Amino acid sequence: MNPFVYYAPTKICFGKGQISHLSELKESGSRALLVYGGGSIKRQGIYDEAVRILTEAGITITELSGIEPNPRVESVRRGIALCREHRIEMVLGIGGGSVIDAAKAIAGGACYDGDVWDLVMDHSLIRAALPIYAVVTMAATGSEMNKNAVISDLGLRVKKSMGSDLLKPRLSICDPVYTFSVPEKQTAAGTADIMSHAFENYFSMIDDFDLSARFGEAVIRCCIRYGPVALREPDNYEARANLMWASTNAINGITKAGMEVGWSCHPMEHELSAFYDITHGVGLAILTPRWMEYVLNDKTVRKFADYGRKVWDLTGTEDLAVAKEAIDKTASFFFDTLKLPRTLRDVGIGEENFEAMAEHCAPRLADAFVPLTKEDAVQIYRNCLS
Amino acid sequence: MNPFVYYAPTKICFGKGQISHLSELKESGSRALLVYGGGSIKRQGIYDEAVRILTEAGITITELSGIEPNPRVESVRRGIALCREHRIEMVLGIGGGSVIDAAKAIAGGACYDGDVWDLVMDHSLIRAALPIYAVVTMAATGSEMNKNAVISDLGLRVKKSMGSDLLKPRLSICDPVYTFSVPEKQTAAGTADIMSHAFENYFSMIDDFDLSARFGEAVIRCCIRYGPVALREPDNYEARANLMWASTNAINGITKAGMEVGWSCHPMEHELSAFYDITHGVGLAILTPRWMEYVLNDKTVRKFADYGRKVWDLTGTEDLAVAKEAIDKTASFFFDTLKLPRTLRDVGIGEENFEAMAEHCAPRLADAFVPLTKEDAVQIYRNCLS
Repeated sequence: MNPFVYYAPTKICFGKGQISHLSELKESGSRALLVYGGGSIKRQGIYDEAVRILTEAGITITELSGIEPNPRVESVRRGIALCREHRIEMVLGIGGGSVIDAAKAIAGGACYDGDVWDLVMDHSLIRAALPIYAVVTMAATGSEMNKNAVISDLGLRVKKSMGSDLLKPRLSICDPVYTFSVPEKQTAAGTADIMSHAFENYFSMIDDFDLSARFGEAVIRCCIRYGPVALREPDNYEARANLMWASTNAINGITKAGMEVGWSCHPMEHELSAFYDITHGVGLAILTPRWMEYVLNDKTVRKFADYGRKVWDLTGTEDLAVAKEAIDKTASFFFDTLKLPRTLRDVGIGEENFEAMAEHCAPRLADAFVPLTKEDAVQIYRNCLS
Repeated sequence: MNPFVYYAPTKICFGKGQISHLSELKESGSRALLVYGGGSIKRQGIYDEAVRILTEAGITITELSGIEPNPRVESVRRGIALCREHRIEMVLGIGGGSVIDAAKAIAGGACYDGDVWDLVMDHSLIRAALPIYAVVTMAATGSEMNKNAVISDLGLRVKKSMGSDLLKPRLSICDPVYTFSVPEKQTAAGTADIMSHAFENYFSMIDDFDLSARFGEAVIRCCIRYGPVALREPDNYEARANLMWASTNAINGITKAGMEVGWSCHPMEHELSAFYDITHGVGLAILTPRWMEYVLNDKTVRKFADYGRKVWDLTGTEDLAVAKEAIDKTASFFFDTLKLPRTLRDVGIGEENFEAMAEHCAPRLADAFVPLTKEDAVQIYRNCLS
């Protein structure tokens, strides 16, 4: 195991009706920027409820709506301008991971003199941030309890994470009811995203820190159990609640403690989203089984076999066979059970940018579970074509 | 599942050499009260190292040594007096759970005008506390990342927990090397304490919140795997590290989220310690299998069978048989593998105070997994005699 710092100071208020905790925002002042996406939080009544609670708590609201999936730096800049204009004291994101990420980036950018893109490119410049609050409406990114905000500049074709302890939300509301209306495709993509976060931490050569590995398996099994239930029965509270809590725990540090390695599928997927603006979880689902197949070797076979036995309850005694079956099960879960797109061609991506994308992400693949080069990344992208 | 608030803001610095993070205490000021027990932290060199780092960080140290196992309110009062005399700005406990609990109670008491025992009896009076820091030297209580401080007034024969979010440490150093010298008996008792924390959360009638149950099983399995290793090889870093992280996670909220029930064995054990000053983990080990046997019934059998299958890998198909075997396995683990005392008589306790102890703890057993009366508690104590 590696020495580690575990720091997850966000107060999570989880369960039906927990939005009442929004009154606690008054601890941070009286002027909030409310960040959200389209009209779904209005249709669901979350917007009205939030405005009512905040107003009763004496908080004045400035609004920034229209945050995109894969949030753009242009939206972040608009939010920062509003913060300055209205002397905003805290930022509240209500939505999925994109909205919360935008809220975080705005909170950091509002305390920085230069352009916020500097902070995306150099995290060490993040030296202060407004207090951040979140109401989660989708189980996927875990942004409600972590330090990252993934921001895109589609002009530059860059999608990149900015990270700082200062960007960890102070309080997040996780009400599973708010995810009842998440469409089938987004529920499936979110489930793949959660699993991918757990995978990125789980597939590590460090094998002497039991608890983190077991916690990771618990998160993955939870997705396998409840993802299909949420697809069949969108209003199933148990399924939505379990997925929501799995989402938070996949990436709040608890599955990573002592096992830190560089990530693999996320850097490769960020290129797909940056070049083609596809849904992050869809890109991850397409990449993951191909990445698993590509990195399966004499050294990693034991880990994949462990995964097969502990997550998929495989009982074979021959490691290589169990490992291969576990990878097949993973692919089948994504493509047959969750019905996610199976290939890059299915989402309209050909090989035209493989070299450029691999060039971009290769530096971040060097310290992964199995270190990968640009050529490796190109090959994995190729393997995703069919 | 129940709605819940999960809030674990402590920064954990885990692993060999992490004591260097003590320099971060300067964020809370320049005058610290250093709380510890006997001479073991001096023999191990932890004391010298801590003093060196704090001094280099410009922090002036006032000392309170001699904290007892089952820390006494009298020691806490001495600490509070020192805080006032030296205008202390933060409290640092270096030791096991007793020392950290004393540090917490001092930190709370120093910000309260009346006597600290008021805070033990009424948590709502805790409205402020000095910042609390900890260096952990034993894997057991998990005090480094929770809100509780268990304090005893042996004159009153009361051992009781005071709890507040304000008592959660700001930063805790968990270096497994510091536990190499923990004696066999304390290592065994600590392992039983960790398991008991996980049990208290795990045995709940709430069965629809997968992740918390799986996290609990992971903690318990970790103890079963590594407790015996630490007994055989006290210097085994892997075993000590896994136990230490299991200890923190057993009681930081992660195994309880959504599953909250009143606890059972802890209230009963606190009476044993209050009346007889025995080691907490020893009392828990004696009580736990008898409590399990006592509450096994038609309603609870499924949960115990689940425990048997998921924790002990039992494969039987008949729930009652699996449940009984799991309870036997638990007893055998405590008494045969960890070699903890098997009966109350083994630790010098007869039936003379059963009525009084049961009378004391009964109110806290009313909302447990299986609600218990005073008469139930007496019977469980009786079952522990042989």
